[in-house]
This record gives sequence, structure tokens and C-alpha cells, in this order.
Amino acid sequence: MKKIPVGILGATGMVGQMYVSLLSDHPWFQVRYAAASPRSAGKTYREAVAGRWRLSASASHQGRWGDGVGDLVVEDANDAGRAVDARQRGRCAFVFSALEMGKEEIQKLEEAYAASGVPVVSNASAHRWTADVPMLIAEVNPHHTEIIPAQQKARGWKSGFIAVKPNCSIQSYTTPLWALMRAGFEVKRLLVSTMQAVSGAGYPGVPGWDLIDNLVPYIGGEEEKSEGEPLKIFGEIKDGAIVNAAAPVISAHCSRVPVSDGHTACVSVEFGGHKPSVDEVTKIWRAFRALPQEAGFPLAPPEPIVVREEADRPQPRKDRDAGRGMAVTVGRIRPCPVFDLRFTGLSHNTIRGAAGGGILNAELLKHQGYLG
Amino acid sequence: MKKIPVGILGATGMVGQMYVSLLSDHPWFQVRYAAASPRSAGKTYREAVAGRWRLSASASHQGRWGDGVGDLVVEDANDAGRAVDARQRGRCAFVFSALEMGKEEIQKLEEAYAASGVPVVSNASAHRWTADVPMLIAEVNPHHTEIIPAQQKARGWKSGFIAVKPNCSIQSYTTPLWALMRAGFEVKRLLVSTMQAVSGAGYPGVPGWDLIDNLVPYIGGEEEKSEGEPLKIFGEIKDGAIVNAAAPVISAHCSRVPVSDGHTACVSVEFGGHKPSVDEVTKIWRAFRALPQEAGFPLAPPEPIVVREEADRPQPRKDRDAGRGMAVTVGRIRPCPVFDLRFTGLSHNTIRGAAGGGILNAELLKHQGYLG
Amino acid sequence: MKKIPVGILGATGMVGQMYVSLLSDHPWFQVRYAAASPRSAGKTYREAVAGRWRLSASASHQGRWGDGVGDLVVEDANDAGRAVDARQRGRCAFVFSALEMGKEEIQKLEEAYAASGVPVVSNASAHRWTADVPMLIAEVNPHHTEIIPAQQKARGWKSGFIAVKPNCSIQSYTTPLWALMRAGFEVKRLLVSTMQAVSGAGYPGVPGWDLIDNLVPYIGGEEEKSEGEPLKIFGEIKDGAIVNAAAPVISAHCSRVPVSDGHTACVSVEFGGHKPSVDEVTKIWRAFRALPQEAGFPLAPPEPIVVREEADRPQPRKDRDAGRGMAVTVGRIRPCPVFDLRFTGLSHNTIRGAAGGGILNAELLKHQGYLG
Amino acid sequence: MKKIPVGILGATGMVGQMYVSLLSDHPWFQVRYAAASPRSAGKTYREAVAGRWRLSASASHQGRWGDGVGDLVVEDANDAGRAVDARQRGRCAFVFSALEMGKEEIQKLEEAYAASGVPVVSNASAHRWTADVPMLIAEVNPHHTEIIPAQQKARGWKSGFIAVKPNCSIQSYTTPLWALMRAGFEVKRLLVSTMQAVSGAGYPGVPGWDLIDNLVPYIGGEEEKSEGEPLKIFGEIKDGAIVNAAAPVISAHCSRVPVSDGHTACVSVEFGGHKPSVDEVTKIWRAFRALPQEAGFPLAPPEPIVVREEADRPQPRKDRDAGRGMAVTVGRIRPCPVFDLRFTGLSHNTIRGAAGGGILNAELLKHQGYLG
Repeated sequence: MKKIPVGILGATGMVGQMYVSLLSDHPWFQVRYAAASPRSAGKTYREAVAGRWRLSASASHQGRWGDGVGDLVVEDANDAGRAVDARQRGRCAFVFSALEMGKEEIQKLEEAYAASGVPVVSNASAHRWTADVPMLIAEVNPHHTEIIPAQQKARGWKSGFIAVKPNCSIQSYTTPLWALMRAGFEVKRLLVSTMQAVSGAGYPGVPGWDLIDNLVPYIGGEEEKSEGEPLKIFGEIKDGAIVNAAAPVISAHCSRVPVSDGHTACVSVEFGGHKPSVDEVTKIWRAFRALPQEAGFPLAPPEPIVVREEADRPQPRKDRDAGRGMAVTVGRIRPCPVFDLRFTGLSHNTIRGAAGGGILNAELLKHQGYLG
Repeated sequence: MKKIPVGILGATGMVGQMYVSLLSDHPWFQVRYAAASPRSAGKTYREAVAGRWRLSASASHQGRWGDGVGDLVVEDANDAGRAVDARQRGRCAFVFSALEMGKEEIQKLEEAYAASGVPVVSNASAHRWTADVPMLIAEVNPHHTEIIPAQQKARGWKSGFIAVKPNCSIQSYTTPLWALMRAGFEVKRLLVSTMQAVSGAGYPGVPGWDLIDNLVPYIGGEEEKSEGEPLKIFGEIKDGAIVNAAAPVISAHCSRVPVSDGHTACVSVEFGGHKPSVDEVTKIWRAFRALPQEAGFPLAPPEPIVVREEADRPQPRKDRDAGRGMAVTVGRIRPCPVFDLRFTGLSHNTIRGAAGGGILNAELLKHQGYLG
Repeated sequence: MKKIPVGILGATGMVGQMYVSLLSDHPWFQVRYAAASPRSAGKTYREAVAGRWRLSASASHQGRWGDGVGDLVVEDANDAGRAVDARQRGRCAFVFSALEMGKEEIQKLEEAYAASGVPVVSNASAHRWTADVPMLIAEVNPHHTEIIPAQQKARGWKSGFIAVKPNCSIQSYTTPLWALMRAGFEVKRLLVSTMQAVSGAGYPGVPGWDLIDNLVPYIGGEEEKSEGEPLKIFGEIKDGAIVNAAAPVISAHCSRVPVSDGHTACVSVEFGGHKPSVDEVTKIWRAFRALPQEAGFPLAPPEPIVVREEADRPQPRKDRDAGRGMAVTVGRIRPCPVFDLRFTGLSHNTIRGAAGGGILNAELLKHQGYLG
Repeated sequence: MKKIPVGILGATGMVGQMYVSLLSDHPWFQVRYAAASPRSAGKTYREAVAGRWRLSASASHQGRWGDGVGDLVVEDANDAGRAVDARQRGRCAFVFSALEMGKEEIQKLEEAYAASGVPVVSNASAHRWTADVPMLIAEVNPHHTEIIPAQQKARGWKSGFIAVKPNCSIQSYTTPLWALMRAGFEVKRLLVSTMQAVSGAGYPGVPGWDLIDNLVPYIGGEEEKSEGEPLKIFGEIKDGAIVNAAAPVISAHCSRVPVSDGHTACVSVEFGGHKPSVDEVTKIWRAFRALPQEAGFPLAPPEPIVVREEADRPQPRKDRDAGRGMAVTVGRIRPCPVFDLRFTGLSHNTIRGAAGGGILNAELLKHQGYLG
């Protein structure tokens, strides 16, 4: 199969670098277009990230770039026209957006690309609450892509559209909850306390001074995202808009801890109606498979939910790479004295929670025919 | 005032060292007796801790030991008779127990001391659930010492008795909750997620391998303590036993994080009846004073609950030393979408949560006349 | 004794905060004047550092500010005239400079204060290599202050002058070496490998991402300072200039490690002529006392060099606070297979290496009569 | 090619686990025999490591064990006869020794295996200084295997023999030095300061308490190994013994830092005779290839020495995985004011420095015909 040429907006940032790394040997997609700030424009990608490569050396050109990404001349991300040209020359069928700007700027820029005919698969938060933009976890709400024709029609777009992914903080509990909901259990209320890795803050992110022998029990804006985004994901399409689910009601405490990658969540769940036993929950999670697994998407983890039985797991450094960073690992499944069920979930925030999740969404969109 | 001579059981361990350090310039008490395992017995305290001093150098002889503790000859802690002799020679009016052994061994040994006439103010968990042993937080349940005469009568003890302190993990939320309860609010249910420092595990405790770029979402036995102990502290004395309070129902997730000292708790509270506003809660906590403050106990923090208004506090390294490690620092007071109130609490686990809390209990017992 | 009123330039930065903290109960000096960037000017100090206090809470107003520093209205540090006014009103006899700007800006600004009659005791590196400005370690080269009259004369300054302190990285080996030199041993060559704390980089300094499960074997400009500055300190005054010593030749590797405070140095020393034994070195260091100790300066550590005999010390968290952060702790004194002597030195980089060292220099200058 | 069946002694320990992980998809070798302490004997490997797997989950059965290692019944490592049986049944052509016992015990046990006809490729330090046992770095002294026939003859062994690898601490500078020596430069003296990862201490190893906001400037026995072992590696075979090289003279400071994997060394080198320029050194290192590369050993890193040009590299977390953990990464190549050359080297201590290095040695021995 000839690979689909793809572009990355914000290619030189930390999430952009992760896109480059994860796409280096992707069987469907190949990076042929890289755009970033005007400061980087005109340089080769290799030059643009020299001294600014934040991932490990083995994730870079010496390890995995391959495919000539280092030689690509970086374009100005503010100029959607450049991508249109590239599209016409067969170098950019769609773009991954890893833009790092103000919310309104990103909204306008992503819209400009879509209006120009270039589909945007975004990691940014800017359009997450736009009613006709689907916010996708490929195992949970793949059918939300059905809103795309309405989105295009309402806005007068043809081939272009915008699809987004949710925040990195919700991955470790949203898919496990969905598996229980799909099995027929009603999740009413949820108390979540997250311990989040520093890579979630980008670079330079949190100063070292604040993370040595310390933690910070606050992440600006994160609790609102952690409480609200699952409701859109669990919502349904009505009249060209995604209408939020009414439940579960979520309360989130979000803390930053001295961990490089991997967000951990301690979760207490209240069910309505019939309540599953610990054994039932364990079985449901072990058996859970969804469209990405059934259709064999390249980045789909074989087991989307990995259950560990050791008393002291999951742990970030030891479990974040499960399913090549795409699986959620859960453990400590036990009753809750206040609610019904407790567990600890963990997911890799820059793979499943960022670039990897974005790529899986593109695989979903390709599978469904939205990417031509 | 002539200082009261005191002994320390388990004087060479990490908590024992903290007792030595905190008592080095105490106005009421002076360490005149040190007991530890047979391995240390017969050595001077200085020799016994050589190469095994776990605290900072400035907490040791070069800084604060003073008073000749280094020259004390360490006794065998298994031999309560040695303490009785010392008592008769005016060197050990009572003992602080920082014993590190199996539960039953500690129970028997602490009972042996008490039976021999030596009061035991304990940091160990062994007797926390003994019905006629008070588990004290001096600001919360100082009146629980009233059970001591019944304890002595039932066991045929004269001057000796046992009083204990609760686990380090509950300090950061129990006093704040008590302040609200005392102000007339009913605390019905509680969800707590703790992020606990490694010093809580003693030495060697948690391997470095498990705490670099990592955290462990499990601490053996800690959740049970965190859920159960506040109920005894909030309980009442009936017929020579302390009867647990029925509420609040508590659910605790306890995690170990790469922090040296200072336990952090993220708390969600459900009230019964009238619910206090964030402003009311803030005012109640700021104004909270109790017996230790009113009576001016030496280690009593002037403000037992320090309220911080910055969005990102409390933080362990920056706030654990508030009130010389004896205060609880709270912050992030805000409504909870699921329950009523959320906050983050922090306390120094080896000062307020261990040796300092034990000393404050001894100050309480002295104040109340139980120590002669 | 009436306290001398002092000012702090750059009072809101991290080093400025440390000055405020350390001066809160100083017997000679009292902070009556605070200056910072225009952004802070006009606010009270309390307002200016709200949400930007980087030290522990117990080092702040709730702990130690006292003396009304929180109520001081912050002045614009760019306007030396404000300090002159304050001087005339008896509120600023001299200033501590903790300015954070470009080198040339600091040079000009410090000169402007000195020219206006306000002595400047600086922590900044800007004037360290100005030939007529003394770079002082109070235990090593207190006589270098003798150049001050020449400095004033050459520049037409009257009461004002500039004195500086060296870089934080050299404290852990320069005083120990000096003690050996003073005892008659010739130090010819030196290989130093430092492991430096993040506070040395200020705030925000090194990103957390780079210090989790990691270290950075490079600190811009630090090796040059570590190699060059001791030579000026060991130099002598000739014709109104300080002439560098010719030896020792120093090679420094400087690395950043995940430690909050406390720089560690592994040192190999080659002597010329007679070589001291490990025992001699140990005795010389234990016995070392200098002017600050003899004259009883308030911040002088009783033992300027603390020798530890345990095999695994000094360690940053356990030893940095020796002598209230003003002592150098050494250990692992042993022969070197390549050179003659090896040891490990440690000092607190923001106390002895920054604000504390600056205050000790002011105590020296006061003692010698340069501060009126 | 049919894979050679291999055994692992000490298979359940941390290094043993790394052997299992690295061999899971090895093209030449397949683990068919696992031995450990009597406590594990009789259990399946899966049972024996349950709750004691120290590596990441993705390095375990869910990721890479494959090949039925989990189902192997663990044998008692003290009983060499079991390996002989396995050998006869075609399940154990030779063993990797990752034994964790006292030195003399290991010596005797490894000798017992060799005497029984089972070649031992060891990671243990016990036999490193046995004169007729080669200590191998496959890129440096592959010809030292020539001593094996003399070893066998002197001891009356037939198919069995012992070959060892050096300590993890020397990998980051020994190969780079050898590359310069091979290019004709004389390395006279060397000052090395290492910053070593905790995995080098095994499990539980260094307590977390000692590595939070801290480092330990001492590792028992490590400096002696770091100074002495390169001399045997650079030595030559004479009369059935390996005679140490006379140079370079090495002085090592070894420190433990809060890093999980990856030892860093800051090195200063003095050359005799002609001294290479920084450019020459860089070229020599970039171009260095040796037998493992030329013969295409499976674990041989394509570039044994990776040169990085960024000012702040190598860094442990970012560079330890270069060449799948088998390469040495060097950087900061620059002149030394005291000696001639300075650089920083880094290698993965549990891959190149332990299990990976052992496997590469076995590949060498296989290539040379010593493994039948």
C-alpha cells in the first residue's frame, strides 16, 4: 500500500516531536510536511530541532526518524496555503495539529486549514467544546465521526474538517468506565485524584525547583477538563451537534508529581442500579475489545485495558509502555467504603494521551473513509 | 522548672532519632534514658547511631543533641526492669515508645513497661485499637485521657498506663475535619487520596529504584488505618472503653511518592444537614485554636491549621515545616461537584505525624496531671 | 546596638528572598529598603512576592520576615536616586545587590549606586573580574578589602564602593584549599567535578523534564568561573589592582543534578613540595578558624570546615545546613592514585554560596569600618 | 539456524530478569534453563518472579518473554548437576551467571559448573581477578579468549570454562580510551568522576530516603574496580595468565545519583607523547568499529561510540538507550586545563554494563568457536 502523506503543525514542539517519532515506521502514514512557528520556517527539520530535541536520542534521527523527515524544509504553520500547495503536490493529505498558541489563534488556524480542504486531526484543546467537532477516543466513541458531514455542510467545507482528541488526564479512567457502561452498568458519580507527569505541561513546563522532594497539588484548567470532557465523549449526536451525557458527575483533584511520563488516577465509582462485583469488573476489562482492535488499526493496543493483579501496580515507569504506550493499565480493583468500586488507572500521557491518540484517531478516520 | 527525665524505647531508629532531635532543647522534658535492640545495648548512644544517623547532620550532636544524650549508655528495650531502675534513680519518669517490632511483641512490651509503673506514650500502632487505650490528637480529643484511670484499674496498674497517637497519614485531614465538626457541621462521608513521603516507611523503607520517575499507588495497611482511626478519635468513652463514632465514612487511596517528608491529602467532603460555604470553612480553620494553644504547650503550633491562599499550595517541601512541623497546612478550599467541599491538606509525617505528635501528647498528659 | 538599615536590590528574586529570610533576625542589620524591577515597584513587598515566594513558607512572613519587611513599598531598582533618598532618611546605609539582569546593566547600575554614595555588597557576577573590586570569602581573603580606598579614589567615589562574592560553585573547595595553603602547603593542580543543585540556576531555572531520572553534565559559564575565580581570591593587591595568583591550575567539570540546594564537589589535589598526610589534612581542617570566627561575626559558622568521618558523607540533604548553611562539609579524605589527595566537599549554594556569603561579607566590611 | 539453548544462573534477580528480557527474541540463543536460589526452585519462572519483577511490564511476559520462559521450572542454582543433565538433554549449552552471593561462593559455584563441562559467561565480579579468566569487552580485548585453552588445561576442564565481563562503571570510558589507544595515542593518566544509577546496586539497593533531593558520593568497592579493571582489559596474555597493563593510572570518584539507569562519567585524560586534537578524537570515536560490528554480532551496536555535539549531552534518560542500550555515548569533548582532554561518557549499566554485555561476550565466544 502506498503510504498516505501527512503533515504536522507544530512539528518542532514536544508533542510534534512525538508525532515524528511515532510515525517514523507507520504502515499507513508518512510525514511529508512539517510546519512550525516562523522562527523555524525555512530551516530543515533537522536544523530546526537541533539542541531542542526533548525526547530520547533513540527516538530521533539516529534511532527512528527515517523516511527523510530530517530533510524536510519546515513551513510557516500560520500559512495554511502552504499546506494546500503541498496537498496538491501529493505531500499532505491531512495534518496533525500539535499547535501551541492561544486558544482563539488555534481555533482560527485549524479552521483555516479545514476551510482550505485540509482535514485537521488535532491534539489541541481549542476545538474540544465546539459542538460539531467530534472529540474522539477510538475505542469509545468512534461513531461520533458521523457528525463530520454536518460540520462540513454547516461551514461550507468540502474535503476539510476538524476532529480532536480529549485531554491526556482523562485517558486512564474514561476507557475503563466506558467498558463498564457498554456492559450495561450505569456509572453515576466519580471521584478522581490524578498524579500527573511533567511532560503533560510541555517544555519547559514545570521548573525543576518545584519538583524535587515536592509535588504541586494543582494544574491550571486540568480539573475542569477532567470533569467535563468525558461527558461529551459519552454524549450523542442530535441535530448536528454533540449533546453531552448527563452522567457521570465527576470531581477531579489534579496534582503534578515528579514523574517524566505517565498519568496515574485513583478512582472511586458510584453505580446506579445493578452494581458489578470486583470479579465482574476484572473480567469485563480483561475482555474489552473495540473497533481499533477488531479492525486491526496499526497503533491499536492488542489489549486496550491491561489488568494487573499485583497489589502495588500500576506504576508509571513500569507500566506506561504497555501496548507500546497505547494501553491503559489498571490495578487495585477493590470495593469502596463510600462509593462502590475503587481502582487505579494509568496511561502514557504523551503517547496514548497525545500523539499516539491522535494517530489512532487518524487511523479511525482513514478506516471510516473520511481521509479519502 | 526542673526538667522531667524521659526515656525513649527504640531510640536508635528513625523515629527514635527524631525524638532525640526534637527533645534536645525541650523546656519540660530531658532525655535521660535510651533503650533499643540488644545489638545496641551497652554502647553509648553516639556509638550506637554512628553511621546510622538518618536525619540531617544539623539535627544530630553537632547541631542539637546537647544535654549529654550522646553519652547515654543504651539499654536493652526488651528489659522493662532497666527502665524501672532508671525511674527509681530519677532518670526516667515515663517513656516514649518508638519500638519497631511485630505487633504482638510491641503490645506485650508496652504492657510490661506500664505494669512496671512506667507510663508509655507510644508512636507504635500496636495498641491503637485496644479499647481502653486513648488514641490522641491533642487538639481534637484531649479528653480521651479520662479513660486512663479505668485502664489502670482494669489491668491492676498503678502509675503506669499506655496512650498512643494515630497514624501519620490521617493528620492532614483529621484536625481540619474536627474543626468543622466542632463548629457544628456534620461530616458524613469523605474521599481521601494521599500522596505520602518515604520517611513514613522508616529506613531502609522504599527502594530508590521504585521512586525514581515513579510512584507506588499502594501502602500496605495504610488505607485501613486512614479510614478507621479517625472514628476512634471522634468516639466517646462509655463504660471504660472508647466507642467509635459512626461517621464519617471514609474511603482512602494511599500512594507513595518521591518526597522525603510531608504527607499530602486531596479530600472531598460530604456534609449532612447545613453545609458551610468556602468562606465559612476558611474562617473556621483560620480561627481554630484548641487546648494545646490555649494552655501554651511547648510544641503546640500557634496556628494549628495554616490556610494558604495561593492556587498551588500546600506543597510538601515548602509547607511541611509550618509551625515547626507541627501545623497542618490546607489550601485549595473549593466546592466539590460530587460532594460538598474539596481541599488539600499537608502535614509533616515524622514531626506532627510521629515524634512531634508523641511529644505533644506527653505535654497534654503532663498538663492534665497524668505524668505526676 | 541600633541596627544598621540595609537595602536589597533584586529583593523579589530568589536570592533576594533568601536575603530577606536570613536578615529577618540579624543582630546588626535590618532590611528597611527593597528595590526590584519596575513591575514590582509601588507594591508592598508582601504583594510583590505573593504567589512568587519560592522558599519554604517557614522562611516567609508567617515564619521569619518580621520587622515589617512585608510592609515596605518596593522601589524601582533602576533608580539609584531612590536609595540615596532612603540613605539620607536613615533607611539604607548600604545595599545588597541580588540583581538579575545582563552583565553590563548590572555593572552600570551597581556603579551608579556606588557613585551616589551607597556601598554595594554584591552577589552578582558582573564585577567579579573588575580589577579594583574585591571578590571576598571572609575566611580566605578579608584583607582584599584594603583595595577599597584605591577603588574609591580612582573613580571619584566617596562613601560608595563595590565589593563582590564569588560563584556558588567554588565554595566547597576554595576554603578547604586555603586552609592547606595557610598551613604552608603548595597546591599546584586541581581536578574538580561538581554536582550542583538546581537553585543555583535561579527560578524557573532548569525544567523539571530535564531533572527527572536524569542529570545534565553541563552548566553554561560555570566551569570558567570555577576555574578562574579562586585565582583572584588567592591573589594579591598591587598598585590598586588585584593580581591573580598563578596557581593552582584548576580543571572543572560542572554537572546539574536533581538536588534542590547544596553543591557537591569531588576533588583531586596535586601538591608541590612537601605533601600533607591524610591525618594532617584532617587536623588542619578541623582546627581551621579565621577572622569571622575570631571576631564573632553573627553569621560566621563556629566550624567553617566540618569534617565527617562516615564513608558516605557529605550528602546534600543531610549536610547542607551545617553551621546554619554557612559551613563547608568535607569527607572522604583519602590519597589519590594520580594526584596526592582526594576529598568531597559540600556547601549550601544559596546560603553560603549566595545570600549568606553576601551577609558575611557585609559583616566583615562593618567590622573593618567600611560601612561607617 | 537452530538456536543454542542457554541457561541463566540467578535468573530471578534483577540482572537475571534483564537477561530473560534481552534474550526473548535473540537470533542465536534461547533460554531453556533457569536456576536460582532454593526458595524459587520447583516453581515455574512465572511464579518465581510474580510480584518480584523489577523491570517494566513491557519487558515481561506480556511484552517480550515469549519462547516459554515463563513455563520453565526453576532449578536450584547450587546444584550444577542439574545443568549437566539439562546439557545432556540439549537444553543448556552454556550458562550466563548472574549469581548474587558472596564472592567465594560464586567462585566455587562457577568453577563447579565449568568443571562439569558447562561454560560460564559471567556477570559476577568473583572471578574478575583470576589470572587465567578473561575479562572481556568484545570491542576491546576479544583476543583475551585465547587464554581459555590454558585455563581448561591447568584445571583439567574439558568443555567447560569461565569468562567474565567487567564492572558496569568502566564501560563509559574504557571503550573510548581504547579507541584512542588503538589509533596510536598513549593514555598515561586518567581522572574519572562517575555519577551512577541506582540499578547498579541491584534490588532493593539504595533506599529511596537517601536519593530524594540527595546524592551519595560513595559506592563501596566501586572505585577500586573502576581504577583496576581497565588494566587487565588492556593487558596481555603471558604464560597462561593475563598480565595487567602498566598504564593508564586511574583515579576514580564514584557517586550514586537519583537516576534509574545509565552511568555518567566526567573524564580528564593525560596523554604521553603525541596528543590528539579535539577534532582527531572526535573523528576517531565516530569512525571506531571493532570485531562485534565487523562480524555483525546480534547485540553489537552499529556505532559502538556515539558522539553527540550538543553542549549539554550525554544525559542518562535521553542517551542511555543509544544502540539499544549497547552503545557508549560521549560528548563535551574539549581540552583540559590540567591534563589534555576532557569528555563525558555514558552507558546503560544494566544493558551494556550487565546482561547485554554478557550476551555480547557469548556472541563473541560463539563466533570464535568456544561454545561448540
